[in-house]
Amino acid sequence: MALLVVGTMAFDAIETPFGKSDRIIGGAATYIALSASNFVQPIKQVSVVGGDFPQEELDELQNRGVELGGVQIKKDQKSFFWAGRYHLDMNERDTLDTQLNVLADFIPVVPDSYQDCEFVMLGNLMPSIQHSVLRQLKKRPKLVVMDTMNFWMDSAMPDLKELLKHVDVLLVNDSEARQLSAQYSLVKAAKHIMAMGPKYLVVKKGEHGALLFHEDKVFVAPALPLEEVFDPTGAGDTFAGGFIGHLASTGDLSFNNMKNAIIVGSAMASFCVEKFGTTRIKEISKEDIQRRIGQFAELVNFDIKLI
Amino acid sequence: MALLVVGTMAFDAIETPFGKSDRIIGGAATYIALSASNFVQPIKQVSVVGGDFPQEELDELQNRGVELGGVQIKKDQKSFFWAGRYHLDMNERDTLDTQLNVLADFIPVVPDSYQDCEFVMLGNLMPSIQHSVLRQLKKRPKLVVMDTMNFWMDSAMPDLKELLKHVDVLLVNDSEARQLSAQYSLVKAAKHIMAMGPKYLVVKKGEHGALLFHEDKVFVAPALPLEEVFDPTGAGDTFAGGFIGHLASTGDLSFNNMKNAIIVGSAMASFCVEKFGTTRIKEISKEDIQRRIGQFAELVNFDIKLI
Repeated sequence: MALLVVGTMAFDAIETPFGKSDRIIGGAATYIALSASNFVQPIKQVSVVGGDFPQEELDELQNRGVELGGVQIKKDQKSFFWAGRYHLDMNERDTLDTQLNVLADFIPVVPDSYQDCEFVMLGNLMPSIQHSVLRQLKKRPKLVVMDTMNFWMDSAMPDLKELLKHVDVLLVNDSEARQLSAQYSLVKAAKHIMAMGPKYLVVKKGEHGALLFHEDKVFVAPALPLEEVFDPTGAGDTFAGGFIGHLASTGDLSFNNMKNAIIVGSAMASFCVEKFGTTRIKEISKEDIQRRIGQFAELVNFDIKLI
Repeated sequence: MALLVVGTMAFDAIETPFGKSDRIIGGAATYIALSASNFVQPIKQVSVVGGDFPQEELDELQNRGVELGGVQIKKDQKSFFWAGRYHLDMNERDTLDTQLNVLADFIPVVPDSYQDCEFVMLGNLMPSIQHSVLRQLKKRPKLVVMDTMNFWMDSAMPDLKELLKHVDVLLVNDSEARQLSAQYSLVKAAKHIMAMGPKYLVVKKGEHGALLFHEDKVFVAPALPLEEVFDPTGAGDTFAGGFIGHLASTGDLSFNNMKNAIIVGSAMASFCVEKFGTTRIKEISKEDIQRRIGQFAELVNFDIKLI
């Protein structure tokens, strides 16, 4: 089933304890589409780029089944740019530079040909822009998944809370779940957040894996223990792409299949961090993905005979 | 198969964000024995207490199959005492007071009747004392599991490294694994530590679960997501008791059964934190434990059809 993705397509400059990148391709919608395209096609992208965004990157997305009719190209402007430096633990980062450029006055327009999308991924972006995309859909999609971040909780909480009433699944990290709910315990935070609208909450915990909450149920997914995390940039978006890609490809919204989607997302994120930027996500094959999912099963599988 | 446990039996005074305890029963060997006694008997305890240690606590241990012939009672002295305050995240704590008392000149003596123990749990204690117990055993036990902490890495690293050559399984938390190995990546830390002696490394990560490393294999166990962690004191010891209790009860040292032992340890620890001190560990039944282990299976179980 067709998947609509909204989010940034951008340039990043990244410093980690292992090295430093030049200005490389990034953006939430880029990572989401690259990741999801392994599971579902077509993907219908809504975004904005400047004239500096490389044609070959657009071509690669199209080759992967990503439609770009909803991507505005502002030839005389520059693409969104973010520069950041990660701490040793790779969980914290400092923003060194943010240049909104084309994003400053972005008004998303959903083409008519996108109206058949039953799955919607609202990538991390200003909540009012995410909401605008949702409002342009004439039919309520089968599943709306939303990513957001602490920045919007600090600067646009009323818009964010209004949007939350209309989404099915919220993806946030642990500190964001705590900030949004004003609860320290993640179990309590989940109850508070699910009362705000989302029926499902996914809490991403980086190297500690992810949690899925729904009603009174909870599922815990591991992260793959890695020798090195080279660059966590885009890992959350890559997770989101795998998660919604699996759901859109199977069309099965049962809790059991949500669990599977969390594992697919975790497997995709485990590739993303192995190299800088989108490098690793672009080069992996379906066989690599299947093997990695098998490793996740090995990682948590146990078979205890109760005493 | 009989289990030998060495460690402290003591008093604790605990402050958490949820409350404050008076002087209550604690000590690594107390928690280990209470936890392990659900799975294996007899347990043969090596420790030291003062005349202030309550007779009813000794009686309760004996009723649970814990032999106390190796527990020295120094009637005119006081038991070891520790007071601490936990931070909001429950992972960090400040020591407010430490009174060594009977521990200051403790020389462990292993009774002849303990020589049949095939399983040995070296609870967190000065490495030279742990080593002394091991040296007194005439026959190499089937399995030696050791717990330790950052305090001994700071103050007794040479003794600790010498002892590591003689243990099969080391239990530490994530920051201790990093300190011991001087490696940030836990995968690299595990390789370094397994080169020091232990064939297995268990890394405890509190609310983020636990990792088991052996050769090139790795297993990830979740922690049970809880509404509240009231008091983490003793959770690591309770984990250790469940872990070695399961191994001693089954006698099976395969990697698959080590995984099961990690789950049993995790289940026991999840009870420990629900109330202050040893309260919860004392009141749970075998049925409670079986049900909790079942919850762990539910928590991580997934069944994905590969694409």
